[in-house]
Parts: sequence; C-alpha cells; structure tokens
Amino acid sequence: MDDELPGSFGTSASLSLRLGQAIFSSASLLFMSLCVEFYNYTAFCYLVTVMGLVIPWSFTLALVDGYSVIVGCPLRQPGILLIIIIGDWVLSILSLAAACATASVIIFLLEIGGAYCPPKFCSRYQLSAAMAFLSWFLSAASSLFNLWLLPSL
Amino acid sequence: MDDELPGSFGTSASLSLRLGQAIFSSASLLFMSLCVEFYNYTAFCYLVTVMGLVIPWSFTLALVDGYSVIVGCPLRQPGILLIIIIGDWVLSILSLAAACATASVIIFLLEIGGAYCPPKFCSRYQLSAAMAFLSWFLSAASSLFNLWLLPSL
Repeated sequence: MDDELPGSFGTSASLSLRLGQAIFSSASLLFMSLCVEFYNYTAFCYLVTVMGLVIPWSFTLALVDGYSVIVGCPLRQPGILLIIIIGDWVLSILSLAAACATASVIIFLLEIGGAYCPPKFCSRYQLSAAMAFLSWFLSAASSLFNLWLLPSL
Repeated sequence: MDDELPGSFGTSASLSLRLGQAIFSSASLLFMSLCVEFYNYTAFCYLVTVMGLVIPWSFTLALVDGYSVIVGCPLRQPGILLIIIIGDWVLSILSLAAACATASVIIFLLEIGGAYCPPKFCSRYQLSAAMAFLSWFLSAASSLFNLWLLPSL
C-alpha cells in the first residue's frame, strides 16, 4: 500500500481522520447535551441532529478502515467509493451549516447578553460549536482525498 | 464546443450560472442593506461582506465567459482553471456559512419575537437569506462542473 495516496479510503491516515471525526462530533454532541436547555433553540437542536448522523457514519467507516489496514487489502470499488464521497460531502455541508448556525446564535446571545446566556452555559455552547467546526474540517478533508483517488480507479 | 461538458468554464451554461450568482448575491445584498439596522447583528454584517466578495468574482467571470462564448475560443489552462475552482470553492463555503448564520439568527429572532424583529424587517431578512442560499447553490455547481473538467485537461 505504499503507492497509495495518504488519507484515501482504506489507509491508516484515513483511519485517523475518521477517528478524529467521531471524537470531535461526539464531543460536540456531549457539550451541547450537557446543557439541558439546548432544545429551546432551533439551531442547537439542528446541531445535535447532525452530530447524531455524523457519529455513526464516521464510526462505521473507521471500523472498515481499521479492518482494511489490518487485512492489508483495501476495498476499492468505484461504486462504493462514490457512495462514500457523496455521503462525506453531504455530511460535511450539514456539519458546516450546523456549526455556523450554532456559532451565529451564540454570538447573538453574547451580544444581547443578560438572562439569555448564563456564562456557564455559553462557554459550553462555544466549545460545542468549535468541535463541530473541527468535525466539518476533517469530513471535508476525507471527501477531498477520496475524490482525488476516484479517477485513478 | 459541442464536445464540452455544459457548465464548465467558457460555455454558455457557465455564463448563465455566473449571471445567476451575480443576480442572487446582489439581491441578497440589497434586501439586507435596505434594512438600515443590519449592522446591529454580526451575522448580517458577515453576510453583507461575503456577498460583497461574491458579486465582483461572479461578475468578472461572467464577463470572461461571455467573451469566450462570443469569440468561440475558451481559455483552457489547468493553472487558471485550478485558481477558479479554488476561488469558487472558498466562496461557496463562505456563502453557505453566511446564509446559515443569517437564517439561524432570523429563526432565533422570530422565536423570541417582539421588539427584536418587526415583521417588515424580518421578511426582508428572510428573502436575503434565501437569495444567499441560491447563490451558494450556483457557486457549488460551478465549482463541481469545473472540477469535473480538470482531469481531462
């Protein structure tokens, strides 16, 4: 596998990207869910929903990547790779949308201040949005690496 | 030019995509700027900034596309195409972020209601966010069509 593009499906770099996505999206979900008031805001509910989609997707692909690395025989069929690229692309758009929506609502809450945003909750919301941005970045990287690999199959 | 992918750089489909981007982003900017209160909210200022970047980019590329269609000799160099793809990609991410941030603040304003969101302004903000989403969609389409063309050069 030394002639492979690092980061494409079935390599150890891809495994670490997937694990990073799963960890950051779980952290984002946890930071948001630990604040019991998140369901008051549409944007926060949307973030929780999207992260709930990203976690199983990344975790499943991390398992497949781990299996490919151990067995040494990556699963390289154009159809499967195309499904993975499209899935990554859709999930990265949804993650970016959720992260931006959450961040803008947090900035707005900080601007109007007062009763809407107790400091204890606001810092958790901010951490959650930052984790969502990191998760988006890794999803977009996975999607681009796989897209780069597609024409060579 | 009948062997060209419709929508890639230098075709008439690309010209209409670029014109659509310029029209929708101008409409988004106008609907937002006509509300004199937009600078109170960070997300709305961000939307105006991003749309101010998208308008000259789309307009310049629309001119180049129009010239290519009239002359019948599209400018097809991998370096130029790569710059256009990266520019489109960055601007489409920024547009999506701005549109989501604006939409989530509008939804939040509608939820808390009252003095923060007079109906006359809120409908304009909504139209502006919708136009920004349309502009994002066309930018992403341009970027994908050009990316598809790149390996064949």
